Amino acid sequence: MSKNNIQLLKGFRDYLPSEQIARRKIISKISEIFERFGFAPIETPALEQYELFKGKLGEDEKLMYKFKDLGDREVALRYDLTVPLARVVANYPDLPKPFKRYQVANVWRADNPQKGRFREFTQCDADIIGADSEIADAEVIAALSQAFMSLEVGEVVVRINNRTLIDKALEQLDVPKTSRVKFMRILDKMDKIGAEKVSEALKEEGFEESLLKNYEKAVREMDAEYESRMQNLLEGFGVINIQFDPYLMRGLDYYTGIIFEFFLKGKADFGSVGSGGRYDNLIGKFTGKDMPAVGGSIGLDRLFAALQDAGKISPQTAAEVIVFNLDKNLTADYLNMTTNLRAAGIDTEFIYDTAKIDKQFKYAESKNMQVAVIFGPDEAKKRVVNLKNLAEKKQVTVDLDNLVTEVKSMLW
Amino acid sequence: MSKNNIQLLKGFRDYLPSEQIARRKIISKISEIFERFGFAPIETPALEQYELFKGKLGEDEKLMYKFKDLGDREVALRYDLTVPLARVVANYPDLPKPFKRYQVANVWRADNPQKGRFREFTQCDADIIGADSEIADAEVIAALSQAFMSLEVGEVVVRINNRTLIDKALEQLDVPKTSRVKFMRILDKMDKIGAEKVSEALKEEGFEESLLKNYEKAVREMDAEYESRMQNLLEGFGVINIQFDPYLMRGLDYYTGIIFEFFLKGKADFGSVGSGGRYDNLIGKFTGKDMPAVGGSIGLDRLFAALQDAGKISPQTAAEVIVFNLDKNLTADYLNMTTNLRAAGIDTEFIYDTAKIDKQFKYAESKNMQVAVIFGPDEAKKRVVNLKNLAEKKQVTVDLDNLVTEVKSMLW
Repeated sequence: MSKNNIQLLKGFRDYLPSEQIARRKIISKISEIFERFGFAPIETPALEQYELFKGKLGEDEKLMYKFKDLGDREVALRYDLTVPLARVVANYPDLPKPFKRYQVANVWRADNPQKGRFREFTQCDADIIGADSEIADAEVIAALSQAFMSLEVGEVVVRINNRTLIDKALEQLDVPKTSRVKFMRILDKMDKIGAEKVSEALKEEGFEESLLKNYEKAVREMDAEYESRMQNLLEGFGVINIQFDPYLMRGLDYYTGIIFEFFLKGKADFGSVGSGGRYDNLIGKFTGKDMPAVGGSIGLDRLFAALQDAGKISPQTAAEVIVFNLDKNLTADYLNMTTNLRAAGIDTEFIYDTAKIDKQFKYAESKNMQVAVIFGPDEAKKRVVNLKNLAEKKQVTVDLDNLVTEVKSMLW
Repeated sequence: MSKNNIQLLKGFRDYLPSEQIARRKIISKISEIFERFGFAPIETPALEQYELFKGKLGEDEKLMYKFKDLGDREVALRYDLTVPLARVVANYPDLPKPFKRYQVANVWRADNPQKGRFREFTQCDADIIGADSEIADAEVIAALSQAFMSLEVGEVVVRINNRTLIDKALEQLDVPKTSRVKFMRILDKMDKIGAEKVSEALKEEGFEESLLKNYEKAVREMDAEYESRMQNLLEGFGVINIQFDPYLMRGLDYYTGIIFEFFLKGKADFGSVGSGGRYDNLIGKFTGKDMPAVGGSIGLDRLFAALQDAGKISPQTAAEVIVFNLDKNLTADYLNMTTNLRAAGIDTEFIYDTAKIDKQFKYAESKNMQVAVIFGPDEAKKRVVNLKNLAEKKQVTVDLDNLVTEVKSMLW
């Protein structure tokens, strides 16, 4: 037989059971919190017309998975969940506003794979469309913040800035429009390379030396009340650890107002675990009419890595109970026990073939099972069954008729 | 402003909240049942090397979304969840066997879109790797059957056949190997076009007239005990409505043993809502060593259409409670109420801007909310709050301190 062991594509991953069970629990918690905040789920396709993303992503556009389909249409794997959301809002004008939706789904970026960065990853997005209120800005941040709290990831800090303030400050400082993107990109590196190197980089690009200091002052004075207003709203929603950061820029082209990023306290090396902002012009690109919009996104994979690092991901198991197979002639009894346990809501596995009992114990342990149901010809005669608590290595013999009740008492 | 309203690709769909909430509930039920049966979740990438699928899908191969990525690699969107599972089993030889996994994920096929058939759709697969027992065959069928029961889709019928029996019967009837695929493809249409037209088609292709009758007889006699053995196992697992159907063939190339399809009783026009079979040679194509495998798949989208048709999908709502905004000066109170309700686990939305109360009621009704929290300057003075049951149109005034308890009592 010819052998052809095919591997994963570079930058892609499999999630095997023990990881995937944990991931599913995290997704379910995040979804629950988003629903608590009044966001409703939607699903959009993985594949969209390439034109949808064209001109919306800035320099990230080159990272798109783009190809021609069988009908010679230019198509692309979705790069994010925000641009498709804007299409949805444009396509279904009758959706009641504000439209609060969340979506948990994969996106694809042909980025250079590196530690913690993959070409396929899961985003958990919550957005509010049709509300230009600062309360909506605060609520999106609060929803993400509450999701992190419910996952017990440890303390989380949210850094906040505002594109409108940045723009006004640069206007006041007479930085010409053509240089602003360059200036912002350099400042965005403050966190990674520090103030000194940012100053050098600015000088190299021909900016005045005093600009950095003047910029921070200008942003903070631009709307003296903005910080305290946002602080009040966020605290009203229960958000803690808020930092205003004039150097936060965010990459995506479409932001117009507030921008924010979440970091794990003392674990900046994991990068941001959530981010977002206001994008009031994006929907107008499809409809011809601007519509206010604000949203945020949790990066599931980075968050998962952080939780693993913190020892918060314990080994996960699929089934709780295993029914051993000691005698082929007892198959009908085994099926009956298995089916009764399952009917009672207990996750149960049955071993299909008879095998030495040691082998069956080994298999049960490899899967972290809690209870083994042991039933041979002797037990069948006496109408009893042995139940072994696999963690405590204790065994009891109980009446066959009480199987379900006894197993339940060992699980809870 | 230029307008550029971009549409969905042909054959793709958006799921808006009321549909998506219902879909999520169905997926969650199916997953729960699969876990009850001892299957554990995994996740594999949407994008794989094209070579993975090459030669595994028979004539369906032309339906693959295949392209070259930025690194000039031939890649393909996953066509099913079974071939990637075989890769996983080959890539991780240490997974304990039997390996029982389930996966709920989208697959992509560039099929001609038609009613109920889309280019992106969701499969819910459960497979058992490393067990050649007929009990494993029965258990996969039982897991799917139980999932349908838990969704209350009405009565479901499972049709069963076996590739080994088909092959042996055709051998006995001296149908040459080269004609067998042709013969099987025609017989597979029995359900759609009836016996008469199948006979005609066979005649046109040069098969003997007596072949059809002899074939059915030969299959049924081939292993006289097979039917009753399977019937016993399936009944042991609680499966009802089992039909042995010598004309069931199934398309995919990789099946080697049992094959099965689930239909809704009296709703054959929806097509099969679930299917699967045994594929003992697929994993060997990657490892060079055959490994027994059996699995089944529920087609979520067809099932959803059937549930909609049966009136089983009621309008779904995101939030349960809405906090009205009657006075900008009361913002801190509104945030406080909203945050307290959410902290008590109640899905709550807050209206960001003051508006006429009629407009706020209209919005609440458009979203099927249950309770409106109404609080203006008068209520603030008296430290009370009005709660309106939106379905029954009844309003009560309660103490502000009892808000959460009172709202809870109106919801449950």
